[in-house]
Amino acid sequence: MQNQNFTSCWLPDGRREKRSNKLIVTILSKAEVIRRVCHTYLSHLFEGFHIGTELNSQDEIVIGTYEATAQACTNDMQVDGFELRQEQGKTYILSHSDQGLLYGTFYFIEQLQLGMKIEDMSVIQNPATTIRMLNHWDNMDGSIERGYAGRSIFFEDNKLSYDKDRIQQYADLLSSVGINKICINNVNVHQVESRLIEADMLIELQHLADIFRGNYITMFLSINFASPIEIGGLKTADPLDSTVEEWWRRQTKLIYQKIPDFGGFIVKADSEHRPGPFTYGRTHADGANMLAKALAPFNGTVFWRCFVYDCLQDWRDRSTDRARAAYDHFKKLDGLFDENVILQIKNGPMDFQVREPVSPLIGALEKTNYVMEFQVTQEYTGQQIDLCYLVPQWKEILDFDTHLKGKGTTVSEILSGNLHKSLQTGITAVVNVGRDDNWTGHEFAQANLYGYGKLTWDPTFKTEKLLKDWVQITYPFVKDSATRLIEEILNRSWMIYEKYTCPLGVGWMVKTGHHYGPDVNGYEYSPWGTYHFSDRNGLGVDRTKSGSNYIEQYSANVSELYANLNSCPDNLLLFFHHVPYTHPLHSGKTVIQHIYDSHFEGVEDVEHIIYEWTREKANLPDDLYSHINQKLNSQLTNATEWRDKINTYFYRMSGIPDEHQRLIYG
Amino acid sequence: MQNQNFTSCWLPDGRREKRSNKLIVTILSKAEVIRRVCHTYLSHLFEGFHIGTELNSQDEIVIGTYEATAQACTNDMQVDGFELRQEQGKTYILSHSDQGLLYGTFYFIEQLQLGMKIEDMSVIQNPATTIRMLNHWDNMDGSIERGYAGRSIFFEDNKLSYDKDRIQQYADLLSSVGINKICINNVNVHQVESRLIEADMLIELQHLADIFRGNYITMFLSINFASPIEIGGLKTADPLDSTVEEWWRRQTKLIYQKIPDFGGFIVKADSEHRPGPFTYGRTHADGANMLAKALAPFNGTVFWRCFVYDCLQDWRDRSTDRARAAYDHFKKLDGLFDENVILQIKNGPMDFQVREPVSPLIGALEKTNYVMEFQVTQEYTGQQIDLCYLVPQWKEILDFDTHLKGKGTTVSEILSGNLHKSLQTGITAVVNVGRDDNWTGHEFAQANLYGYGKLTWDPTFKTEKLLKDWVQITYPFVKDSATRLIEEILNRSWMIYEKYTCPLGVGWMVKTGHHYGPDVNGYEYSPWGTYHFSDRNGLGVDRTKSGSNYIEQYSANVSELYANLNSCPDNLLLFFHHVPYTHPLHSGKTVIQHIYDSHFEGVEDVEHIIYEWTREKANLPDDLYSHINQKLNSQLTNATEWRDKINTYFYRMSGIPDEHQRLIYG
Repeated sequence: MQNQNFTSCWLPDGRREKRSNKLIVTILSKAEVIRRVCHTYLSHLFEGFHIGTELNSQDEIVIGTYEATAQACTNDMQVDGFELRQEQGKTYILSHSDQGLLYGTFYFIEQLQLGMKIEDMSVIQNPATTIRMLNHWDNMDGSIERGYAGRSIFFEDNKLSYDKDRIQQYADLLSSVGINKICINNVNVHQVESRLIEADMLIELQHLADIFRGNYITMFLSINFASPIEIGGLKTADPLDSTVEEWWRRQTKLIYQKIPDFGGFIVKADSEHRPGPFTYGRTHADGANMLAKALAPFNGTVFWRCFVYDCLQDWRDRSTDRARAAYDHFKKLDGLFDENVILQIKNGPMDFQVREPVSPLIGALEKTNYVMEFQVTQEYTGQQIDLCYLVPQWKEILDFDTHLKGKGTTVSEILSGNLHKSLQTGITAVVNVGRDDNWTGHEFAQANLYGYGKLTWDPTFKTEKLLKDWVQITYPFVKDSATRLIEEILNRSWMIYEKYTCPLGVGWMVKTGHHYGPDVNGYEYSPWGTYHFSDRNGLGVDRTKSGSNYIEQYSANVSELYANLNSCPDNLLLFFHHVPYTHPLHSGKTVIQHIYDSHFEGVEDVEHIIYEWTREKANLPDDLYSHINQKLNSQLTNATEWRDKINTYFYRMSGIPDEHQRLIYG
Repeated sequence: MQNQNFTSCWLPDGRREKRSNKLIVTILSKAEVIRRVCHTYLSHLFEGFHIGTELNSQDEIVIGTYEATAQACTNDMQVDGFELRQEQGKTYILSHSDQGLLYGTFYFIEQLQLGMKIEDMSVIQNPATTIRMLNHWDNMDGSIERGYAGRSIFFEDNKLSYDKDRIQQYADLLSSVGINKICINNVNVHQVESRLIEADMLIELQHLADIFRGNYITMFLSINFASPIEIGGLKTADPLDSTVEEWWRRQTKLIYQKIPDFGGFIVKADSEHRPGPFTYGRTHADGANMLAKALAPFNGTVFWRCFVYDCLQDWRDRSTDRARAAYDHFKKLDGLFDENVILQIKNGPMDFQVREPVSPLIGALEKTNYVMEFQVTQEYTGQQIDLCYLVPQWKEILDFDTHLKGKGTTVSEILSGNLHKSLQTGITAVVNVGRDDNWTGHEFAQANLYGYGKLTWDPTFKTEKLLKDWVQITYPFVKDSATRLIEEILNRSWMIYEKYTCPLGVGWMVKTGHHYGPDVNGYEYSPWGTYHFSDRNGLGVDRTKSGSNYIEQYSANVSELYANLNSCPDNLLLFFHHVPYTHPLHSGKTVIQHIYDSHFEGVEDVEHIIYEWTREKANLPDDLYSHINQKLNSQLTNATEWRDKINTYFYRMSGIPDEHQRLIYG
């Protein structure tokens, strides 16, 4: 049915030299998955290994709960945390739960891949949050909205259609980085996907849920808020209408009859033409709570997206600022949502741009559960053609100090639940996976999936370590100098991509619809609320008090930081201010010279990477060399197009020549 | 199958008061169509009418060839020309052919609709050209490329699918204005349409051809140049390959076995990604002649389109000018085409813009047959939402003096075959008809189809007369003041549309892909060769000697006219020159002030039309009033969008305020 020849992912396969010794593992757990994972992956790491089920003197590794192994738990262990413990010559993988044992086992395997000695492995790990989630934007026709790695691994021809082995390997990939929740269908729920919650579809879905359940991954569905009308035959989807409530209760019960551990619903409501409670004069709280009440008896959850804004804005209306929308819509509803409602807030106020400030809604909700939403799939960040390792972006966001409770109130503190202890928080993301053999289209884009998972487990994880680990476990067969090159080009890739696509935080100068390649005015006169307001004198969006006053949504410190031209960082200057082309940056350059310079540099950087990649050819397997080389050359074409269109546009606008007399087309 | 409730076309129906007298018609022709046309349409014009087949004393009207009626032909009558003659108290409709009798009969009917007395009818009419053609851009899935009047009247679900009665009425509409050739499928021939020339499809097609043949309309098909590969199983479509020649000969023979009067092929080759002879290093002449040779034994014709240009142009390359392309490609091939090849040349050098100069290829070919191609369907001219009566545009083109053989060498002279007597010339056009009840989406867009047909018959026809006639015969039930209003708003509509969409001949500031609504930079950095080069100082395309020297393709007089800023008409200024915003026009305004003024005026004009239309409400049938009112309001929305986007764009660019301080958004 689907191609099974998967290549290059970070779990062990036959590409690494095996350790010459044997490994004897005793598994004191009945969870089938522990045994299978050991079998599947440890066999690639040792000449021989043996699995036992009783402790004996030959054991090297014992996997079991504290209870089963009669080991004392001396720490503050969460239910899905784990411990690696050295005790009387044995290595114990311990947890309170089988789920924790699975994570511990994958951690153990990873440490082996990284070359650690078994006897040195001693660690206690607890996940930072209980919500470590992925959202697929897969449609049932097999297409993926914003997907750049082939068709859906779940759907085709308006049916479920998947390769069990592939889904199992996918579940293993996710478990190996700690992901515990997955939504399998697009938040834009079209007609056919609305039917996923009907009886006949659920019979199909339960087999898929079985696979994920085996890996302690809970399955969710995106639902259509208008389902009572579209599939229920009702005349309304009003969340306060008793027939609507009853319809959802009945439908939810049906789901749980088939999938007892079903996670719940993801809802994109009143957003980009999706139906929602506004139609009936109800609030987002009314809408979310109605669904939450249907799910509550089964411990289900509603993820309710905050990506709500006026997508039919009049570009002539300078008083409306889309950046304000999420906060303006949801801050006032704080405290009105049921406990099993979790708001889903995009990392920035706009939409997964190359560079945006952190959403001011993060941390501002004090009585409402929420998650931050990242985008692993590279919609605005190169579409898995251009290289863009996003972990540095996510780290910057996670490390951002909101000052909401004084200095040091970082986003990762907030998302770890340390700001408002009573709240459920966490991280979710749109995934970048499709049916391509290498999972992610661009093989290096796997690093984003890996890094994302690791950060949901521990947002304080260091970027460099994450990258080094991924390269080492993914390319055990690649020589050292090439390994270092891969790390280096990945590490610089976001900055390079930013150089040629998004000067000074301006955003949106992108081709409409598909969002790849430059179109400076593509969104400028559109109804989407996405403008740069460039004219012959300058550009940028005034979001200070003299403009939309979006900055008021932040803490006083952050607001002041961005409001003041002296403190506003160059890379967000045009997001917060409208300035002349001659405005001097902190860097000493003018805005216009920065635009020229960064675009020339961006292309030169890509050229340099290609040069370096070519130099390493001998140290790289042919297929990897060619694959990346082809991608890099496509990236160069794209970067060149960006450079020339952006530079020409702003040269035509400003009339100011490049200080260095480089070629800018007239 | 299809909706049969057609409304409003210009042939008589039950909406007009009948003349109280009887009409007795004697038909001395065996052509079934003459009898049917009399039956169908005269019955609506007289209380009673009678058809006879022998001359007797009561006859009022006699229809028959000169031979059958024993009337002498005293003039230089073409075979499809006709005469209305008063003789011994009878009115004769005469011709050398049944086809001419059909046109004469329709002419007679039209004169009746226009209120003429029968005894005053005395006329001799010969068509200006033998090629009076329409091109449908219908796809077999039922869609129509650039169609704005519903789905195809010929196809659906990748099959032929039509209502015989509707096709018959369509054939009558076409015959009533003299159309004698029709191509039923899109020039962009996709996979399924390539199969139209296969045996099973031809069996279906012959029934359609039968209907058109009954009205002396010859049917053509657009073909895929790569058919030998795509449906023939050959490895090549090289026109000089003998297996390819043989394949086309065999396939052509097959067609003529089913459709003995088949017209031939329309070919879009090496154009906008369509396959063609360039693939094999062959010329357009090689390609066209190969097909011509297959068609020649059956008197078939190849229409070979000259819409050939580089649609992957690099916008940075200022040395290439798409306007030059058709002339550059085809002028050098003059004389190399077989006699039954007819080149098809778009009216302007670009692509059916609101305003373009006349294609310099018209008249320049001295040894090659050709037709001019108009676009009746309103792709760039309002998409049958905005009102745009195109006859004045076509008239300007037809009346244009090319000076190719001295003053007075107008396009209509050339197309009438008076410049190079040996050549076959004529007019073709992309039609605006679909399955909508009113045929053309916007009911007033019927006037374009009517006017087009009349102009192919007689390019010297006066715009005002054409319009007056159409209104009178289409709306016999509408009161006089409203009739005058319809004429007036149609007559001004092209100028109004130009005001808000195409200042000074600039063109292409349109949304990409669908081509409705403004996007100033939509095509500016594209590969389509369609630029305005606006910067902070000015705009326009230099096509003089200092630029692309496109003007050299015209006669010396015309070249001089356009080259000189003093003589270049304002409405083509930016097509030929790059000028500063402050450049003074002949009107005395600056370019920038003209841009502002014309866009404000355009919107005001539409507002005024709506006001006038509303005032006439009482004099109009409800359905007509509402239909047009709704269209006009959509047009106002569009015009307003154009005004504000264009004005803002050029205000941001130029920084020059409106002299009249009207609202331009910043």
